[in-house]
Amino acid sequence: MAWSLNDVSQHNSSSDCWLIVEGQVYDVTDFLPEHPGGKQIILKYAGRDATLAYKPIHPPDALERHLPKDKCLGPVNLEAKQQLQNQESLRKKTKDEVRVAEAQTRKPPLKRILTLQDMEDVARSVLSYKANAYYSSAADDLISACGSAPPLIFSLTSQHSAHSENVRAFSRFFFRPRVLRAVSHCDPSTSILGYKSSLPIFVSASALAKLGHPLGEANITKGAGRCNIIQMVSSNSSFSPAEIAAARVSPDQALFFQLYKHTKDALALKLVREVEALGYSAIFLTVDAVAAGNRERDLKAPWVLEDQERELEDQLRPMVEYPQDEAAASVLGTAGGLTAGNDADMTWEKTIPWLRRVTKLPIVIKGIQSVEDAVLAAEAGVDGILISNHGGRQLDYSMPTIEVLYRLRQQRPDVFRKTEVYIDGGVRRGTDILKALCLGAKAVGLGRPFLYAQSAYGDSGVVKIIKILEREVGHGMRLLGAATINDLVPELVERVDWQPILPALAKL
Amino acid sequence: MAWSLNDVSQHNSSSDCWLIVEGQVYDVTDFLPEHPGGKQIILKYAGRDATLAYKPIHPPDALERHLPKDKCLGPVNLEAKQQLQNQESLRKKTKDEVRVAEAQTRKPPLKRILTLQDMEDVARSVLSYKANAYYSSAADDLISACGSAPPLIFSLTSQHSAHSENVRAFSRFFFRPRVLRAVSHCDPSTSILGYKSSLPIFVSASALAKLGHPLGEANITKGAGRCNIIQMVSSNSSFSPAEIAAARVSPDQALFFQLYKHTKDALALKLVREVEALGYSAIFLTVDAVAAGNRERDLKAPWVLEDQERELEDQLRPMVEYPQDEAAASVLGTAGGLTAGNDADMTWEKTIPWLRRVTKLPIVIKGIQSVEDAVLAAEAGVDGILISNHGGRQLDYSMPTIEVLYRLRQQRPDVFRKTEVYIDGGVRRGTDILKALCLGAKAVGLGRPFLYAQSAYGDSGVVKIIKILEREVGHGMRLLGAATINDLVPELVERVDWQPILPALAKL
Amino acid sequence: MAWSLNDVSQHNSSSDCWLIVEGQVYDVTDFLPEHPGGKQIILKYAGRDATLAYKPIHPPDALERHLPKDKCLGPVNLEAKQQLQNQESLRKKTKDEVRVAEAQTRKPPLKRILTLQDMEDVARSVLSYKANAYYSSAADDLISACGSAPPLIFSLTSQHSAHSENVRAFSRFFFRPRVLRAVSHCDPSTSILGYKSSLPIFVSASALAKLGHPLGEANITKGAGRCNIIQMVSSNSSFSPAEIAAARVSPDQALFFQLYKHTKDALALKLVREVEALGYSAIFLTVDAVAAGNRERDLKAPWVLEDQERELEDQLRPMVEYPQDEAAASVLGTAGGLTAGNDADMTWEKTIPWLRRVTKLPIVIKGIQSVEDAVLAAEAGVDGILISNHGGRQLDYSMPTIEVLYRLRQQRPDVFRKTEVYIDGGVRRGTDILKALCLGAKAVGLGRPFLYAQSAYGDSGVVKIIKILEREVGHGMRLLGAATINDLVPELVERVDWQPILPALAKL
Amino acid sequence: MAWSLNDVSQHNSSSDCWLIVEGQVYDVTDFLPEHPGGKQIILKYAGRDATLAYKPIHPPDALERHLPKDKCLGPVNLEAKQQLQNQESLRKKTKDEVRVAEAQTRKPPLKRILTLQDMEDVARSVLSYKANAYYSSAADDLISACGSAPPLIFSLTSQHSAHSENVRAFSRFFFRPRVLRAVSHCDPSTSILGYKSSLPIFVSASALAKLGHPLGEANITKGAGRCNIIQMVSSNSSFSPAEIAAARVSPDQALFFQLYKHTKDALALKLVREVEALGYSAIFLTVDAVAAGNRERDLKAPWVLEDQERELEDQLRPMVEYPQDEAAASVLGTAGGLTAGNDADMTWEKTIPWLRRVTKLPIVIKGIQSVEDAVLAAEAGVDGILISNHGGRQLDYSMPTIEVLYRLRQQRPDVFRKTEVYIDGGVRRGTDILKALCLGAKAVGLGRPFLYAQSAYGDSGVVKIIKILEREVGHGMRLLGAATINDLVPELVERVDWQPILPALAKL
Repeated sequence: MAWSLNDVSQHNSSSDCWLIVEGQVYDVTDFLPEHPGGKQIILKYAGRDATLAYKPIHPPDALERHLPKDKCLGPVNLEAKQQLQNQESLRKKTKDEVRVAEAQTRKPPLKRILTLQDMEDVARSVLSYKANAYYSSAADDLISACGSAPPLIFSLTSQHSAHSENVRAFSRFFFRPRVLRAVSHCDPSTSILGYKSSLPIFVSASALAKLGHPLGEANITKGAGRCNIIQMVSSNSSFSPAEIAAARVSPDQALFFQLYKHTKDALALKLVREVEALGYSAIFLTVDAVAAGNRERDLKAPWVLEDQERELEDQLRPMVEYPQDEAAASVLGTAGGLTAGNDADMTWEKTIPWLRRVTKLPIVIKGIQSVEDAVLAAEAGVDGILISNHGGRQLDYSMPTIEVLYRLRQQRPDVFRKTEVYIDGGVRRGTDILKALCLGAKAVGLGRPFLYAQSAYGDSGVVKIIKILEREVGHGMRLLGAATINDLVPELVERVDWQPILPALAKL
Repeated sequence: MAWSLNDVSQHNSSSDCWLIVEGQVYDVTDFLPEHPGGKQIILKYAGRDATLAYKPIHPPDALERHLPKDKCLGPVNLEAKQQLQNQESLRKKTKDEVRVAEAQTRKPPLKRILTLQDMEDVARSVLSYKANAYYSSAADDLISACGSAPPLIFSLTSQHSAHSENVRAFSRFFFRPRVLRAVSHCDPSTSILGYKSSLPIFVSASALAKLGHPLGEANITKGAGRCNIIQMVSSNSSFSPAEIAAARVSPDQALFFQLYKHTKDALALKLVREVEALGYSAIFLTVDAVAAGNRERDLKAPWVLEDQERELEDQLRPMVEYPQDEAAASVLGTAGGLTAGNDADMTWEKTIPWLRRVTKLPIVIKGIQSVEDAVLAAEAGVDGILISNHGGRQLDYSMPTIEVLYRLRQQRPDVFRKTEVYIDGGVRRGTDILKALCLGAKAVGLGRPFLYAQSAYGDSGVVKIIKILEREVGHGMRLLGAATINDLVPELVERVDWQPILPALAKL
Repeated sequence: MAWSLNDVSQHNSSSDCWLIVEGQVYDVTDFLPEHPGGKQIILKYAGRDATLAYKPIHPPDALERHLPKDKCLGPVNLEAKQQLQNQESLRKKTKDEVRVAEAQTRKPPLKRILTLQDMEDVARSVLSYKANAYYSSAADDLISACGSAPPLIFSLTSQHSAHSENVRAFSRFFFRPRVLRAVSHCDPSTSILGYKSSLPIFVSASALAKLGHPLGEANITKGAGRCNIIQMVSSNSSFSPAEIAAARVSPDQALFFQLYKHTKDALALKLVREVEALGYSAIFLTVDAVAAGNRERDLKAPWVLEDQERELEDQLRPMVEYPQDEAAASVLGTAGGLTAGNDADMTWEKTIPWLRRVTKLPIVIKGIQSVEDAVLAAEAGVDGILISNHGGRQLDYSMPTIEVLYRLRQQRPDVFRKTEVYIDGGVRRGTDILKALCLGAKAVGLGRPFLYAQSAYGDSGVVKIIKILEREVGHGMRLLGAATINDLVPELVERVDWQPILPALAKL
Repeated sequence: MAWSLNDVSQHNSSSDCWLIVEGQVYDVTDFLPEHPGGKQIILKYAGRDATLAYKPIHPPDALERHLPKDKCLGPVNLEAKQQLQNQESLRKKTKDEVRVAEAQTRKPPLKRILTLQDMEDVARSVLSYKANAYYSSAADDLISACGSAPPLIFSLTSQHSAHSENVRAFSRFFFRPRVLRAVSHCDPSTSILGYKSSLPIFVSASALAKLGHPLGEANITKGAGRCNIIQMVSSNSSFSPAEIAAARVSPDQALFFQLYKHTKDALALKLVREVEALGYSAIFLTVDAVAAGNRERDLKAPWVLEDQERELEDQLRPMVEYPQDEAAASVLGTAGGLTAGNDADMTWEKTIPWLRRVTKLPIVIKGIQSVEDAVLAAEAGVDGILISNHGGRQLDYSMPTIEVLYRLRQQRPDVFRKTEVYIDGGVRRGTDILKALCLGAKAVGLGRPFLYAQSAYGDSGVVKIIKILEREVGHGMRLLGAATINDLVPELVERVDWQPILPALAKL
């Protein structure tokens, strides 16, 4: 049976709630209390079409996976389909959609992209305001440079953040290049957890790539595969682990999985089994997200748009809504929905042994932010640690990651012999990668740059920034007098006692 | 008997000076030499209505309290009342009043206030120029950021200040967050001098709340009571201690009293007895105000307004007048009037034992700015010390308070075991509070943020910022791996050797 | 006999050169090679009236003192006087003169001047471009803040300088104020070389006060005398030592003399004898001016004006002319003329003993810039040293003076017991003075602030800034817990490891 | 035989490629694969006149030197010459050419140039966009000051660079001047590798001077000769070593040669023999250019111009073209062509002994960037080392050179006794030179300042900046108390722990 719009519209309350997504009708009444983003956001669409709000932030198969079969009520009828299409075609474009469409026509040819910053600049111009806000948001205060951001935007909140401290911290490390060493042959390849990588970098997990491009994370999978680097897949991807695995360029392309452990061990185990079955090669257990980051930029985005365009309020608001109820304050913004259900009671004693027990995959702890925890991790026998503060998105004033790595090198160099050490956060140049490797990192993760690259040019953008980094890394190795990754030693780097003046990197 | 305006106008000299305040006539001839703000300011209104200048900066019962009964001459007559009303309704609004009235209509809904900075932004927009100048003023040079202040204002004097150094200093303390600790249950409550507090914060005394809102300090009392945090009440409140006590939401709501000790012990004692009788729970003896702060912003405010609007000079000038007589230079601006009579000869040997003798209330010394004095205070056996530089309002280049706390932690950790240590000055975020607690503070005071909150939204504003801080503190504790206040230890914080770039916090 | 303009105009070559100054005719032919500023500058006026160029930069009696009697040829005749007056009244005002005249009408009342910076702002507005350039110039690169300077001016050269480093250096010293000390009576008076001073400050020598006000240095003498502080008189004053001595408010007003020792001992001795006879109380021997400072701002001033007003080139150029001849490059700008004849071969072995021999006056060495030289001076038995880098006007990147004082305190505290130590350079606030005193300075000199004050308001301006500093010093002493100068000890000050953000102090 | 344009135009493919340069026809078919800048750039002109693109970046004799005689096909005929002239005269000037022509008319007289910065300002105004981009480019990110650069230019990429860190680093070294020393006679002369130099400076090699002025490097040769300082000639000069030698003002004017060693020893040897024969006095072996610097500014220049002027694309593009082929990524921009063929496998063991063997000339290693390599060089017995990071043009975040010198002084003062130590990079003032000499440098190189000087005023510009530096050095020596170069000792300099605020030096 196929439904008319009128049929659906009868079920428009919290005790009887249907909605339409991509032409399919769903009864979500029982699901309302479980929705990570809160029920209010769904109720806005009770009895109506929710495709526009749903699609950019959910995996395609999310509804099917979360609803019992009998709550998937089947398609709308032909007339309804036509009516929905008419609605869409009549819908007035928002100012932000007009801006994006225009920017798409002015996008420079890919060959003009010389740096990751160039790529980010293009991405910011073609991303929707909401996507920009989500991608660039970080905890608490954000630093705003006198960059290219439209001046009306975030002018009040453009502030300092650990996000930018991550970037600034790299600039306090200078090189002590060595000369008269044979470097005409220079090999930047390495291995990560035993998997070959053409460069000492990997894709660090980041959520909701579909906000920037319809093919989302799959773009990254394809680009990484073509260049032989490894992607860590986010639990909050806008595609399912299976869909992303299916996007690999070859069956032996390695993928890592970023695990947000669910409060219920059973649900967590189910997810582990799923990714094991799909052939993922390692589990990156995320430990720095026991509470949702306080991302005010993200929260304010809808208001900015609202103020820009009052009459379109209804279309824009649904995505992110600030909870009226202060008691619910821990569920915040786009980020809020993503952390619901995450286990906030993980411990060294309980969680690591449990995970070690249930899977044979290599285990990496993602989110180490102190020397002490690095030591505990090494003692716990995990296969690697990722020094990360979640791109500055969680706790403002968490120590910049390269500074943590530096302290680890100074205070406990033995840790590097016991476990592989990675780092992410603020890496934008080949020189950043080289600094981290000199200090002992096995590889370096990049997150936002891949989001920007795929948003701007799809998988070609992803390939492009890897090639840029390849050029920058090779070039830097030669000028440092290093022919192989093993030649990158601590003596090549010095932490200086002054602060270089940095360009405006975060422009939105 | 009721007076006509003509009756009053006969008494218009320094030897015979009457004035009208809120419809009542007073003979202030004998009071002229005692007026803390100087007699000239009163003489401007000799024989006239002074309500407009008087009301925003005096407690309602101030005249009755300071004048003998027989100098309160009774009400004006009906005709006079009508004439005064007519005068008021005919009075042309100043440009600044017009600006404020307009800003009031554009005030965002409270739910859009996500941070204390958002709140301050709103407050600044709806505060009069004079209130802005008084609230934001600090000693000597003030830093001005490229913020939202109307460009005509203070453009010459927007400069550096210890006030902003208080803020900047917090940014040099970074976190070393710990992971894999059970934090799903997280309790930020504590006690201060034995009184329960839902958060490790309290309201630090600040004067003249009525400048920002007709209900002034009472807004703060109500908001603090509803959220179970404690208010320290200023000696210079625009309401009397009794009026503020009466505003409590329940009889057991704790209040602290900030004491400016009068030169005459007897007068000081009388005040102590008064607040004891009203049920105040502790005395915070202020020791950093033996001279009035040199607040040039405050002093210049009337000239700025004058230049803006020459014809209204007379209305605007009275409030703050720079003394012609250089010898009287210690009485300066709005602040000047507030410190007259304060004891500048308090000593460790004399004053603390005296206070200990006359009251059983807990005693806290407010205004400690050095490790040495913290040690002396602990040896003197006081119940607590408040490390404070008066919000940077007294001596420019006094050490930022978080730096004093840090030095105390480094050099004399024993002091924290002997007395409770608090800190105020520059606290704007939950992370600031957490840093201070990690370094050993029992609780953290905030002053200006409460002035701004009540100015913008009355008691709802006060509740709002407490809720914001509750969210930020709870969120930060979880991400630090701290489930209780006791888990906040020095090892979680590191003072770094670089200076992050801060957003423009002080915009006026 | 009285001369016609035609008479004078016959003598218009380097072999026969007459000129008119204030109605008197002089034969300067023989003097041409001796003129410190070079002969070309005089030859521009050969056979003509030179009053306009001569007057603002020479003492009134300079011609009489330097020329033999028979070269003073007597007055012009009445017709010539009339013609010269007509010329002057017909002369078109330059744009800069128009600007200054206008600014004079907008000068705020003196009571609105609250700070030395306020005073400087007014002075800059009413000073001619040339005076501004001379007063504010310093060695090499000057920092320009985004201040009030007309944008066309110095836009290319607004740069960093030791001048501004002098100022910035003070901001790295913070206070550790002490509380609970009796300070109601607070006495900031002290003595300098045994002479009483109402404040621990003195006027540091600065040249050419007449550029800013017709009464020049005499304004300073009067103001200092009225406030009981001591003036150090520059060898390069625009009034003679005798004229300045005559301006004293009482015969016992102390004056110090700043000596630029002439290469020829006899000439130097003559000057010493002169000031001894006039009752000067000490000799400040200047040792940091063995070469003229490289003051590009000063040199560029005429070009800026020229570009502003091509047709008036002739009037403007004469004052300062860049030497065509590279070999003459050490004679530069307004400053260049002032150092010609100065002894560049003074030594510890020769000069100090000589001076000690020839005079009984106390001797102070002005221009000490290193700990080593402070020690040598103490060993040489001089009565005092003035740590000074000539206001940053000589060598760029000379160590800021407060930093030199700090190093002296750290490394050789014994020097403070052996000789009096003073400091100047960058002092703008009472807090600056207090910092220097805490670190061991006996008194602190201020130079430019007095030039600005007398330029803006004559002797009243001078009194005003002393009163401002008196208020600031007294206020700061109380808040530091210091009742007398002796209570200002090193423990009250801490050099911090961060750099506060300073306001734009140097606005031109 | 003389060719018609039609004749030439037949040979317009990669298998048969002729082109015209300055009226001569060349068959470059066989040369295509060997062209350092790639063949595509040549093919743009296949069958056409290439003079405009060829001339500014090649030595006049380059074609004759690289092509076999029989490939130089002789001149075009008269008609062709006429046609080419017509084309040129009809060619529409580009906007950039118009801007440059205009700027030439506004150039200030040379006597107004007081500083190297003044000179650079003039040069930037009269240089083509392309020359500006090449001269000012450096590795990776460049800092952009709020200077005089046309706002449309490089606005996206104006960023931090080691180039500006070279400059900023000098500002952290302050002087501790000594007084009372005889300095009226002051001698700044010294010797470099035994050759007399009137100042402790030399011209550091920089390429492509003809981009800025038709007489290019010859201007520098003449200016240096007239002032008795020594020029180091770049391997990549736009004139040949012979042409530059011929420009000397006297036969005994010393020249040094900067050697980029070719991969093939035989070719390198041939070049050494050539410069030996020409009378060059030393070999500066460049070791910091084993890979081409990543100069994005340089690469982006043509696109900026293109966007400015779409219709002229063809004329502008050829010079620098970003390789489509990622594999060819090491050949980049103007710089790319210059490093092709350079030996990337030089070693201490092999290369230095080889060079020592083949020549008796003094050997200096140019590009030392670490204390370790300075020590190795001293042990290898070379005659000198030049601490240099190639003006920041190679590896971003290479340690500023004055910091390397400082570390060498601190850690291995013995090296200064074993070999002569020079430094270049960021030297713009006499004070910079003095700082380096105090720390132990024998002499200091300047590169870009000479490019700018000759671009602005030819050889007179070169003389001018040497005279400026002479004045600044002499002036600074006197004020430091140093009468000779030997008096410049480490104790006169102190590295401070704060960062002065610098003016915008790099304005493009």
